[in-house]
Amino acid sequence: MIVGVDIGGTKVLAGEVTADGEVRRTALRVTPGRRVPAQLVEDALTEAVMELADGELEAVGLAAAGFVDVTRTQVLFAPHLPWHREDVVARLSQRWGVPVIMDNDANCTALAEARYGAARGASSTVLVTLGTGIGGALLLAGELWRGAGGMAGEFGHQQVVPGGLPCQCGRSGCWEQYCSGNALVRHARARLGASPVLAAACGGDPGALTGPMVTEAATQGDPVSLAAFRSVGDWLGVGLANLVASFDPALLVVGGGVSVAGRLLLDPARAALARSLVGAEDRVVPSVVPAELGPRAGLVGAALLARGLV
Amino acid sequence: MIVGVDIGGTKVLAGEVTADGEVRRTALRVTPGRRVPAQLVEDALTEAVMELADGELEAVGLAAAGFVDVTRTQVLFAPHLPWHREDVVARLSQRWGVPVIMDNDANCTALAEARYGAARGASSTVLVTLGTGIGGALLLAGELWRGAGGMAGEFGHQQVVPGGLPCQCGRSGCWEQYCSGNALVRHARARLGASPVLAAACGGDPGALTGPMVTEAATQGDPVSLAAFRSVGDWLGVGLANLVASFDPALLVVGGGVSVAGRLLLDPARAALARSLVGAEDRVVPSVVPAELGPRAGLVGAALLARGLV
Repeated sequence: MIVGVDIGGTKVLAGEVTADGEVRRTALRVTPGRRVPAQLVEDALTEAVMELADGELEAVGLAAAGFVDVTRTQVLFAPHLPWHREDVVARLSQRWGVPVIMDNDANCTALAEARYGAARGASSTVLVTLGTGIGGALLLAGELWRGAGGMAGEFGHQQVVPGGLPCQCGRSGCWEQYCSGNALVRHARARLGASPVLAAACGGDPGALTGPMVTEAATQGDPVSLAAFRSVGDWLGVGLANLVASFDPALLVVGGGVSVAGRLLLDPARAALARSLVGAEDRVVPSVVPAELGPRAGLVGAALLARGLV
Repeated sequence: MIVGVDIGGTKVLAGEVTADGEVRRTALRVTPGRRVPAQLVEDALTEAVMELADGELEAVGLAAAGFVDVTRTQVLFAPHLPWHREDVVARLSQRWGVPVIMDNDANCTALAEARYGAARGASSTVLVTLGTGIGGALLLAGELWRGAGGMAGEFGHQQVVPGGLPCQCGRSGCWEQYCSGNALVRHARARLGASPVLAAACGGDPGALTGPMVTEAATQGDPVSLAAFRSVGDWLGVGLANLVASFDPALLVVGGGVSVAGRLLLDPARAALARSLVGAEDRVVPSVVPAELGPRAGLVGAALLARGLV
């Protein structure tokens, strides 16, 4: 039995994955947060994995929302997790008694989408995932480009606004402050008083408002939520235009929790991309397509790594 | 005899290049500008090439400051040249009666720096050239990454300031508006009254001020010129940090006319990179090194292409 685990800023999702990439069962835990002992995150991971394991566990793949080093044994730094230069792979491998393999969560998502999903057959792909923050990955000629230090694809921390909003990474004006689940909720929260639908959804408590509530309200036509999606979608298009100017991929794939909103997010993104991309009039503007594997893509990609298939 | 030609926004530089990459002789012409018939640029090119040719011409390589299509026969679009979907290669090949091969000028520079210069042996390199605008190229795993449509490396047109300065590309807030020879001159021009050295250099005419004048004055310690270099250098570091976040290269090479200022440009750039790069505390920040081949790198790379060596 192979288990893949997606370790995000808000939740841990483990899944038993077959050799064909099918997810048999999943186990979910809440991520304990960033300012807690690393041990607590590892306990949550262990609970999720053991819920599925039944003593038959062969290997575990981890998709971590953080900067994984070039040897893929340490999380060097993670804006939304307590790990800091932690020997995660060695520690969990000992704790669980099986091989553990790890990569950045967006890299795992890209591997899964390239094998089973939206990036199948594309000659080159930029993948962006919109969750708590932004994850990213580059696929060149079917291969993941991990970078010289293993840290390529951290698109979310490009500075897009000089002196802009402070970021969890310690800098400011990072793209993910304007284009992510957090940005979506911030927008909606600021105008909560103008949206009876959202106010009802969160019981009038701005702190209880979540991304899925905003998505649900937008689907029902709530103007505040739709405006939040337009802003995030617009910034998505601007940032994708920057990536296309640099990298000129054949395809752009957008995944992550925020992307379940579909056209509410992607229509403004496509418009902003066409408007912002240098030379758009004289070039083929790459298609922006939704990821196909949904929130399980990260754990499926991690399982591919654990199985040695990629 | 192989001739390489660098076609920039302000000048055309042709050179006879030996099989070892040595430049024997050069010929220089002024680029007639953007809002003139394409014919005039091609006349200037022809003059420069024919000055060198002596009837022994075998092939010509062109390094063009513009968007070269994926077949490398057309310039689709060029912010500083009059070409627009022009069959440049076919037309000049007929006119000169020899094979002509073309690539983007920054790609040519990268090929030359990878073979003879600063990028030799680097596993991956981001090259940025600061001239009239910004040129860029990506060398990944030793190969030029040209992109799905041949337009990778247009780093200069990443939007870094929302609603920022208008750009020749038709958009606004592009990196090259803040980090280029044009940006350097704009800064110095705005404070010309505070700089006797610069005022003398340009005869009191702000329109006559050039990048080399600002570089010369900065070398002599002129505070206005030094401040202009600090601003351009700072933006260079911020933009490089964005590129490192995305591509995580082993090396950063800075070339182009502005880079002859050396540490006046690179010291503030290195400081801004270290300050702006996500996770800088926990990763190896790539070195920022000057290009080694100087203003001839583009034509040397074009000659490499014409000789079929790359």
